Amino acid sequence: MSVIFGERVRTLRKARGLSQKQISIITRLDRSYIGGVERGERNVSLYNIFKIATALDIKLDELFKDFDV
Amino acid sequence: MSVIFGERVRTLRKARGLSQKQISIITRLDRSYIGGVERGERNVSLYNIFKIATALDIKLDELFKDFDV
Repeated sequence: MSVIFGERVRTLRKARGLSQKQISIITRLDRSYIGGVERGERNVSLYNIFKIATALDIKLDELFKDFDV
Repeated sequence: MSVIFGERVRTLRKARGLSQKQISIITRLDRSYIGGVERGERNVSLYNIFKIATALDIKLDELFKDFDV
């Protein structure tokens, strides 16, 4: 679950040419937290999911499209 | 955010004729936790979001459809 979510965040971030640092600045979440999310080490909360989606400029339903676990 | 999510969970639960107790049994989350989620008092984690979606038999992208905050 978290691994799939993390991989998706990383893919989207890279597709947008953003660094973890930039996502960290936009979301005000620590860069190491963002790294942990991308490695699937975090059970991310709804607020932080929304912050990350906003930073990636993607709607939640798009972020979770075909999110089969 | 949590309020919108909670209202959506409640609407979907009722549409499926399920009680909070039944959701609690299916998800193995405490019934009072489910009540808190529905009242928007919980910053739900990805795992629990997925458990609730599974109990409601809905995909995550459908659960977050048009989730404009």
